[in-house]
Amino acid sequence: MSVTLDDVRAAAARLEGVVHETPVLTSSYYDDRLGMRCFFKCENLQKVGAFKFRGASNAVLQLSEEDAANGVVTHSSGNHAQALALAAEQRGIPAWIVMPTDAPSVKRAAVKGYGATVVPCAPTLASREATAERVMHETGATFIHPYDDDRIIAGAGTAALELMETVIGLDAVITPVGGGGLLSGTCIAVHGLDPEVMVLAAEPELADDAARSLEAGELIPAGPTTTIADGLKTSLSARTFAILQQHVHEIVTVTEDAIREHMRTVWERMKIIIEPSCATVLAALEKRRSAYAGSSVGVIISGGNVDLDNLPW
Amino acid sequence: MSVTLDDVRAAAARLEGVVHETPVLTSSYYDDRLGMRCFFKCENLQKVGAFKFRGASNAVLQLSEEDAANGVVTHSSGNHAQALALAAEQRGIPAWIVMPTDAPSVKRAAVKGYGATVVPCAPTLASREATAERVMHETGATFIHPYDDDRIIAGAGTAALELMETVIGLDAVITPVGGGGLLSGTCIAVHGLDPEVMVLAAEPELADDAARSLEAGELIPAGPTTTIADGLKTSLSARTFAILQQHVHEIVTVTEDAIREHMRTVWERMKIIIEPSCATVLAALEKRRSAYAGSSVGVIISGGNVDLDNLPW
Repeated sequence: MSVTLDDVRAAAARLEGVVHETPVLTSSYYDDRLGMRCFFKCENLQKVGAFKFRGASNAVLQLSEEDAANGVVTHSSGNHAQALALAAEQRGIPAWIVMPTDAPSVKRAAVKGYGATVVPCAPTLASREATAERVMHETGATFIHPYDDDRIIAGAGTAALELMETVIGLDAVITPVGGGGLLSGTCIAVHGLDPEVMVLAAEPELADDAARSLEAGELIPAGPTTTIADGLKTSLSARTFAILQQHVHEIVTVTEDAIREHMRTVWERMKIIIEPSCATVLAALEKRRSAYAGSSVGVIISGGNVDLDNLPW
Repeated sequence: MSVTLDDVRAAAARLEGVVHETPVLTSSYYDDRLGMRCFFKCENLQKVGAFKFRGASNAVLQLSEEDAANGVVTHSSGNHAQALALAAEQRGIPAWIVMPTDAPSVKRAAVKGYGATVVPCAPTLASREATAERVMHETGATFIHPYDDDRIIAGAGTAALELMETVIGLDAVITPVGGGGLLSGTCIAVHGLDPEVMVLAAEPELADDAARSLEAGELIPAGPTTTIADGLKTSLSARTFAILQQHVHEIVTVTEDAIREHMRTVWERMKIIIEPSCATVLAALEKRRSAYAGSSVGVIISGGNVDLDNLPW
């Protein structure tokens, strides 16, 4: 049973008044530079600074009263951790966030700031999963995966839904791709509304597992990577891979230098803070400038969580 | 003949499609911290990254064909320089920007990027004024002052006009004050629409000439200052002082530490880039937390032009 446009619409109704309806910005600088007309859907201005709050809220709000009372658990040191913590706080239920002991203290503090309990684990996937299992067993909390979950995907798709309803006549919509939750939700929303609109994705060359998976026709897991786009290190799941295979027109891979340059340029020219993962989409559009020349492109700006004391320039 | 609400409305009509209608953001973090409901009118997301583009465009668009053909001139190393350069470029007329030889090269480059001619001068007010005079004499260009001009004030007021039309039921509106152009335009717009809404202003303690002028009942010029709020170093003019005397409820002065802290906090929590001048308004609201507790406050975020290689933390 796959996610449909109706699920995305239901999520949008559920999230009304819960999430920010984020603004859509334009930039003559980028329009000139890319030779396209770009519409930036600013999920960096979403609560917790990332689109992740949409999916997390959509999942938490669908729990039965009984399940909700036992709380939620996830393992993440990224934006999903904060998103789930805030979604749980807003429903008034407990949240346990399993985080590796080497996670930055600022991230632990943010999660605690939303009232969640941080559960430390060793910095390995095995330890993360085992620790989350233990929390589920001990507390009865429901595990909420960062992207391999229909409710998360439908929630993530509401950003593209809002964008498509705000800007009429888009030729394409582009998002970054890590685990594929945002991209999957975008596919469902965009093609549910208009199958003619191309769905594009951007990925670092150093973490190009999604591009390689689509090319190979089989899911290739992500290996270790040093990309600065820390939100895009995760592997697709079978669920997201199946949706991407059906809907994605092209995944464009981009260099670290291009990510860094566009991140800084967006800060300088658009006055919004974007994290490295977001900058991939602009690098991708520039790389494929001639292919999409003259197009109207919806650009999902996925998040703005960065450490201001460690900027990549 | 003073600026009226009709002038602001005429400016808004003139600027439609020329300026960005900037978004109004909210932040639960700041609402909680300040104990108010804040509505951030994001002029940092305006073209050239500052509200200044509204006034500059409003002035340039009102020039007769004959005057326009001779171009415009100003002396500024701040946001007005870029704003006037872009406004002139958009009308297709020449612009000369007098800038001191010690102005940062990035600012010169920005002005040149909009097609204006940078005219160097010695770093003194006398040299700036004499150089601008010479350019006017040689070219016939019209001098456009950064704030001592009714067209600039009316244009600046359109930000508050949009805000008041978007958010119903504000108790107060706050802006920073330097030369008083933004604050004057805000006074006219806000009190033209609703005389009951309080107009507040924020100023660095290190550049508190506007606060002292209001208190003394006479215009006290700004002295030299080391405030990091570089947009707020200028003195009021007789024109802006008269408007402030009539309309401003309170000018709150704030410390450099508070400016620095709020600047960084807005970057971290709201994911938008604001310059130090903007941060004064949040520091002011926090200082006067108890006086305005429970209020709905419109906050004009005036600009976002900062040097990313020289951040104040």
